[in-house]
Amino acid sequence: MTSTAYYTLTEQNIVEYLSTVPAMGMLFDDFSALEVKEVCDGNMNYAFIVRSKNKDKSSVFVKQTPPYIKVLGKDWPLSRERMDVEKQALTYQAQVCPTMSPKLYYSCSAMSVIIMQNLSQHLLLRNALIARQSLPKLASHMSSYLANTLFYSSAFAEGNKYQPTKLSNQAMCQITQAFVFTYPFEGHETNNYNPSLCQNVIDSIQKDPTVRMHIGQMKWAFASKNEALIHGDLHTGSIMVNENDTYIIDPEFAFMGPIGFDIGAFIANLYVNYFAQKHTANPSSESYATSLLSLIETVWLEFETKFLSLWQKHDNHPDNTAFIGDHLGVELAHSDFREWFMQTILSDTMGFAAVKMMRRILGVAKVADVMQFENNEQRAKLEAQILRFAREMLLTRNTHRDFSSLNATHILNNDK
Amino acid sequence: MTSTAYYTLTEQNIVEYLSTVPAMGMLFDDFSALEVKEVCDGNMNYAFIVRSKNKDKSSVFVKQTPPYIKVLGKDWPLSRERMDVEKQALTYQAQVCPTMSPKLYYSCSAMSVIIMQNLSQHLLLRNALIARQSLPKLASHMSSYLANTLFYSSAFAEGNKYQPTKLSNQAMCQITQAFVFTYPFEGHETNNYNPSLCQNVIDSIQKDPTVRMHIGQMKWAFASKNEALIHGDLHTGSIMVNENDTYIIDPEFAFMGPIGFDIGAFIANLYVNYFAQKHTANPSSESYATSLLSLIETVWLEFETKFLSLWQKHDNHPDNTAFIGDHLGVELAHSDFREWFMQTILSDTMGFAAVKMMRRILGVAKVADVMQFENNEQRAKLEAQILRFAREMLLTRNTHRDFSSLNATHILNNDK
Repeated sequence: MTSTAYYTLTEQNIVEYLSTVPAMGMLFDDFSALEVKEVCDGNMNYAFIVRSKNKDKSSVFVKQTPPYIKVLGKDWPLSRERMDVEKQALTYQAQVCPTMSPKLYYSCSAMSVIIMQNLSQHLLLRNALIARQSLPKLASHMSSYLANTLFYSSAFAEGNKYQPTKLSNQAMCQITQAFVFTYPFEGHETNNYNPSLCQNVIDSIQKDPTVRMHIGQMKWAFASKNEALIHGDLHTGSIMVNENDTYIIDPEFAFMGPIGFDIGAFIANLYVNYFAQKHTANPSSESYATSLLSLIETVWLEFETKFLSLWQKHDNHPDNTAFIGDHLGVELAHSDFREWFMQTILSDTMGFAAVKMMRRILGVAKVADVMQFENNEQRAKLEAQILRFAREMLLTRNTHRDFSSLNATHILNNDK
Repeated sequence: MTSTAYYTLTEQNIVEYLSTVPAMGMLFDDFSALEVKEVCDGNMNYAFIVRSKNKDKSSVFVKQTPPYIKVLGKDWPLSRERMDVEKQALTYQAQVCPTMSPKLYYSCSAMSVIIMQNLSQHLLLRNALIARQSLPKLASHMSSYLANTLFYSSAFAEGNKYQPTKLSNQAMCQITQAFVFTYPFEGHETNNYNPSLCQNVIDSIQKDPTVRMHIGQMKWAFASKNEALIHGDLHTGSIMVNENDTYIIDPEFAFMGPIGFDIGAFIANLYVNYFAQKHTANPSSESYATSLLSLIETVWLEFETKFLSLWQKHDNHPDNTAFIGDHLGVELAHSDFREWFMQTILSDTMGFAAVKMMRRILGVAKVADVMQFENNEQRAKLEAQILRFAREMLLTRNTHRDFSSLNATHILNNDK
């Protein structure tokens, strides 16, 4: 078995390490024929692809969590427990969404290592969107992932066969609270503004008391709602795709949190790509942008339908009791309650999506959809448009019944 | 030291047990001079008062949690962990509210025992209210207890010196979800209706789809909001008083839950006593009832003032950051956010208070304030009045700014 003392894996020592893992002996018949490539997988962790040079071409993806934030170095300590969280969250999502979860070959808390399926034949969804790839199954896959992971870990699924860990993940939640909900909206030193972005555009977010209060409401929702086991960082860089498959990776921010945060994170990144497409001169970008608005609307509607269907199915099972109890003939109470619940989740989804979009413009962590525009002035126009839309979505989030009305009022009207 | 194997304490073996606890040797100089009295302290646990017959009259209160619900017997298993929860919650409340917490002499997880200050010179608040005792300090004490325990364990107090355990308490929360939020509102076999209570009064709660939906909303709030470390069962039987002191006991239901649940539980029981006083022929009961309405209004207003003051003081401290971040000159955002927050807590408080009142009439667990009326017909009038008021409070909870407007509209108007 592997040693229990932690040490940092490198391209040089990783094969020796893998040879001590029994599961790897099943996969690789010749450790001397392995080639290793370190990959830049996000800001937090070390990652390697290890591949057999023999004709079977077996390969694995190895991820190791250092006791600090990788890109910031040892001066930014961060508990290695996030790897245990990731493992538990991956295990849960594999139960309720097996076809969208990378195979897990091995994990070790002492080394903070996970070895999993190599998905290097897939693209990060962010890059697929930037390249305007056709992804005909994405809406169906993502709405299923969201409905299944969020329903089965909610209080509505009580008595169900899936019993996810009631994960808390304080260190990672504090990072989100700071970098998503706080720093971007105050004059924090980590913020990073495009020098061509007008001060009055920045002020329309940071210095508008109504906007700041609404952002406070979303931060409080994030800090206090434990509705379901959420991924916690479901942007388009946590999703890998090809035409047929969709995989969800990197749930190291997972915790019992607000349902709308996962849906909102995903949708926010689709909107960011939408606005980027509208700024692109490519002839196909206009129709791709239109398809993204339709994708957003479909993801929400299919999520709603699938979540409600799981709920109904749960309640109809003779072994289960409904969340609000026996209806005593007043079935209306159940449908009214479900409608109220979905309205609440929609409002949260829009609120979280808005905050996530704003922080990508004002805060330290940028996205390629926007940064691909190297000209500051050109990019500032895109950024101002994203901020304006996000602001409107945040402030009107309680007035919409779905994303069609939001898009019709705050995007398509403005296009005219 | 005490044995690590659990066994049940009795009047016969408890002195022998206490003699093995070092802290008891400090308190009692002669174990042969102790007298023991088992007391009926609630439904869940065993309790004893142990007192020295020597002239010092030292005494302690000993509580032991069996691995089942005491009144229901061994067929109703329940984890003994609730005693560890109680100990952690008492330790936290003693930090932030020392004068209202019983002294803790000793605790032992293996035996599920807590030994604490004997409060038998105090009355349960429920009995003091039934006896119409004057309690001039109660509003001030309870508003301080609520503000301190709820503020210092909330996300707003981040960076503060008090770091309460982020307690979860799943087994006990399931009991509350079933017996407070579900069974009383469906035709559950544990329900217990006064035979003289009209079916249409029962139906006005159980078969009104709007009422049932609102109760579902409160159950979801209970199940999903982790806002602060709450007591979890703060009715007037969890409070001991005399003219000068107020002690909070029995926090075995404590968990990170919704702030309004504690305030609502307390206020619900004051309203129940109010309606009971109005049904009493005693000449002083009318003025006592009036003073209870004023007590309710004052408790809320003082809670609000004290909570906001702790919050302001926290934010003004140079080492702390405000929850919504640096205001950048827009102080209005903070005051708007705080006002929104308090409105949300008020709405939850009224909603939880309503559900708590309803379950005392329809569910299995009754209260002496109501049960003192032995005549079924007379009691049914009182019960119907309580249910009618609770129903109105539940449905109008989003429309009030404080309890004065609720009382003026739904109690004093009806009295005319």
